[in-house]
Amino acid sequence: MADAVLFEFLHTEMVAELWAQDPDPDPGPGVSAGPGGGGGGGWGGQKMSLSVLEGMGFRVGQAMAERLPRETLAFREELDVLKFLCKDLWVAVFQKQMDSLRTNHQGTYVLQDNSFPLLIRMSSGLQYLEEAPKFLAFTCGILRGALSTLGIKSLVTASVAALPACKFQVVIQRC
Amino acid sequence: MADAVLFEFLHTEMVAELWAQDPDPDPGPGVSAGPGGGGGGGWGGQKMSLSVLEGMGFRVGQAMAERLPRETLAFREELDVLKFLCKDLWVAVFQKQMDSLRTNHQGTYVLQDNSFPLLIRMSSGLQYLEEAPKFLAFTCGILRGALSTLGIKSLVTASVAALPACKFQVVIQRC
Repeated sequence: MADAVLFEFLHTEMVAELWAQDPDPDPGPGVSAGPGGGGGGGWGGQKMSLSVLEGMGFRVGQAMAERLPRETLAFREELDVLKFLCKDLWVAVFQKQMDSLRTNHQGTYVLQDNSFPLLIRMSSGLQYLEEAPKFLAFTCGILRGALSTLGIKSLVTASVAALPACKFQVVIQRC
Repeated sequence: MADAVLFEFLHTEMVAELWAQDPDPDPGPGVSAGPGGGGGGGWGGQKMSLSVLEGMGFRVGQAMAERLPRETLAFREELDVLKFLCKDLWVAVFQKQMDSLRTNHQGTYVLQDNSFPLLIRMSSGLQYLEEAPKFLAFTCGILRGALSTLGIKSLVTASVAALPACKFQVVIQRC
């Protein structure tokens, strides 16, 4: 039980720490770390933080998938792998299953979580919607990392329309 | 089950990321992030990373302790609080109890874990001993944060003599 909140707390701290550092190499004139609203300066640093978070998630996803029982790794139909992420991986990370999985049967999958745990604490108001991406980057990485271990190259992005629901779009890279 | 490794993997990534950034404000000439052996430049940055990790642990420890059942928080004898950390908090974080707790009855406590989970993966050789502190800072923070929520100010340090065993020394601040 407590483990789940431990992960959530640690994830929150990690996001906060990376944002506090805001490692923008070229912040431009007059840019501060203060509450200056969306857009504006510091965006380069924020993009870098998102990329760092995604990379950390990728390696954690790889490691998680490597620990899966071998028999699970045996069935390698692409759709089966995605179903497996929605069920077993999601339970391992978030103690719940993904709510829906859709595909266009051409290598694009949309995974929807109607109550994504890492967004629940901030779901009380629309004003937080613009903060959402930084709470999704790590998890995009986890999905991409797990797929990588299972032999599938992908691009994973996330979007939020109404907190705390969110969608992860997985596009398989065939080349 | 998987949650425990999730925390470990995330912790490992967090340590690696903070070390990669090595935010030394004054690294001096000729200092690089390359494998230049221990000591030398970048030490200021490493101390800062340790402090960042400890701070993150502190806030996670506070949050963990806030979620504890009220009846647990009722008995506030100092030694009982320490016993509680060794048992309930350690199980919540590491799925095991602390191995021993000693005190001089003057506000200093030594908590020993003979097989500390965050050191186990690196416990195969003495050459890693100097790397150990960065895997202990977050946990020192967790202990200090949980104690803080329980109304006790403290200083917490850690030491390693033989991997993967380690000792956490808690010194209560009376002032």
